[in-house]
Amino acid sequence: MLKNDLLLKAAKGENTERIPIWLMRQAGRILPEYRAVRSSVNGFKELVKNPELICEVTIQPVDILEVDAAIIFSDILVIPEAMGLNYEMIESKGPFFPKTITQAQDVAQLTTDVIPNLQYVFESIQLTKKTLNNRVPLIGFAGAPWTIFSYMIEGKGSKTFSQAKKMLYTNPVLSHQLLEKITTATIAYLQEQIRCGADIVQVFDSWAGVLSKAQYVEFALPYMQRISAAISDVPVILFAKDAHYILSEFGQTNCSVIGLDWTIDPLKARLEAPTKTLQGNLDPCVLYADVDTIKKEAEKMLQQFGNHRYICNLGHGVYPDVDFEKVKYFINVVKNFKG
Amino acid sequence: MLKNDLLLKAAKGENTERIPIWLMRQAGRILPEYRAVRSSVNGFKELVKNPELICEVTIQPVDILEVDAAIIFSDILVIPEAMGLNYEMIESKGPFFPKTITQAQDVAQLTTDVIPNLQYVFESIQLTKKTLNNRVPLIGFAGAPWTIFSYMIEGKGSKTFSQAKKMLYTNPVLSHQLLEKITTATIAYLQEQIRCGADIVQVFDSWAGVLSKAQYVEFALPYMQRISAAISDVPVILFAKDAHYILSEFGQTNCSVIGLDWTIDPLKARLEAPTKTLQGNLDPCVLYADVDTIKKEAEKMLQQFGNHRYICNLGHGVYPDVDFEKVKYFINVVKNFKG
Repeated sequence: MLKNDLLLKAAKGENTERIPIWLMRQAGRILPEYRAVRSSVNGFKELVKNPELICEVTIQPVDILEVDAAIIFSDILVIPEAMGLNYEMIESKGPFFPKTITQAQDVAQLTTDVIPNLQYVFESIQLTKKTLNNRVPLIGFAGAPWTIFSYMIEGKGSKTFSQAKKMLYTNPVLSHQLLEKITTATIAYLQEQIRCGADIVQVFDSWAGVLSKAQYVEFALPYMQRISAAISDVPVILFAKDAHYILSEFGQTNCSVIGLDWTIDPLKARLEAPTKTLQGNLDPCVLYADVDTIKKEAEKMLQQFGNHRYICNLGHGVYPDVDFEKVKYFINVVKNFKG
Repeated sequence: MLKNDLLLKAAKGENTERIPIWLMRQAGRILPEYRAVRSSVNGFKELVKNPELICEVTIQPVDILEVDAAIIFSDILVIPEAMGLNYEMIESKGPFFPKTITQAQDVAQLTTDVIPNLQYVFESIQLTKKTLNNRVPLIGFAGAPWTIFSYMIEGKGSKTFSQAKKMLYTNPVLSHQLLEKITTATIAYLQEQIRCGADIVQVFDSWAGVLSKAQYVEFALPYMQRISAAISDVPVILFAKDAHYILSEFGQTNCSVIGLDWTIDPLKARLEAPTKTLQGNLDPCVLYADVDTIKKEAEKMLQQFGNHRYICNLGHGVYPDVDFEKVKYFINVVKNFKG
């Protein structure tokens, strides 16, 4: 039995005594304790594959920031790697794929039998779950099929992801084949995370915003629907950054929670997805401000979302150069909010 | 008298015999003739300051693509430079400011008397206007104050522009002082472009999308309103990329035209800004597709916008690696569209 199950209750639409809060990228560079662990290993990928260290950095924000959930420390790109497409994490630049997907043969060579290749994640989850000792829920996660697809084609970050989108327009059949394979692998991955102890899972569609609505509906939404439908044991959070046009469609999926970025009006989201719990959506830059501004902006947001069917978060990951004392202050404002 | 005044008629809300079309970045790397000119000079800034070459590359798409307008070839960053903040254009990386704005003294040192420093732009406009010989209208342009501000603080492109947004949250007074100065300079700049022959002007808010609606309304919209109100001789086009939340507010300004990116539903935009001409909004990636797909996607868009109060364009600049024969094909689909 979880000692703090606020997040799960809110996700399921149950009343909670106060609003639960966690932050995307809460385990990471804002914490000196994380930076100490990070500098003790040789590169990001060494950290991602070390269950003891994963457990340590995953629990750090629960101890230090007193958030209402832990999210397993990992990367969305473990899936392409487990499917056979290796990536490098280049310091201060981001991910880079030496080989990208360009043709049918590349797609055919990818495996969807990813579970054996992801044992380090499952071990990390089991160890973290045990070490957490039911203090708070543990969040599992994966990248959305479109976002994983876009990295596999583009090979790196991009402002436009024009090469990935070019594939959608020039070879829709192959695009769907690749998206199908990613989806199959992702469902197996999330289900195994749940079997190992994840209490709730989030699907991150980080590059949703480069797609038109028509393309999102054709190439991204069906796979988000399929993932939501395949996971019935725990609540699913869908977060499609910058896809302001897709809220009502997400409202029709089997997901429990919809994550929002800070460009979305809370009241509009409530109208478009009235049966879902909403999560978000403070501008991460608010945490650069003085405490009075943080309090004012946070309370304005909390008033708009209301106390019911709401999980407090930022509208994107916390920026690494934010003072973690400001993050703690924000969390306390939320915890003390009376509505 | 302009021989082809379709763009101006559509901007003013008059009926046109067919839909006018031009493309953002139509003068540029898609054209072999542009690349020949570009490789004859030593860097982008040498090209931007050469009126004869500007005239040549500005008119190239009128000759080759047969678009319904020319847009003066320049860069939005000529304004910070004319105000006293120099920039470098780094090949395949983008703009870089060796010095950025960090404090009140930096803002105080900027001049708003930019006209003497921008004579190369005005000479380019005069020469181009004369050489065009009234074939099509000439579009002038400037960056929006928020976008110029964000470069002046951040010093380079960014996914988040978190440093520029940090300034808004931590020093709103200084932020407004800088935005005021940029606006004053921009109005003078656009008015002089018009005096020299620009028939219509567009204001590009390229980084609008990183702001929440509340921040856009506080730090960007008032300056867009002021620019729209200050320019009465020619129509003004406002284009705020990714600011899906601001259409009804733009609908209340003095602008004539609102530019839309491809994430905006044409029918929604018509509802939110019913008295304005709309411009856009094909996904630039459609031009990677085969001609049948281009025709289908273009005609679907044209049907949605309709023939009245509409200027056809992409939802952002044309991508440099698009085949210009595809661009020509798209333009002909639009010109032959019967509605």
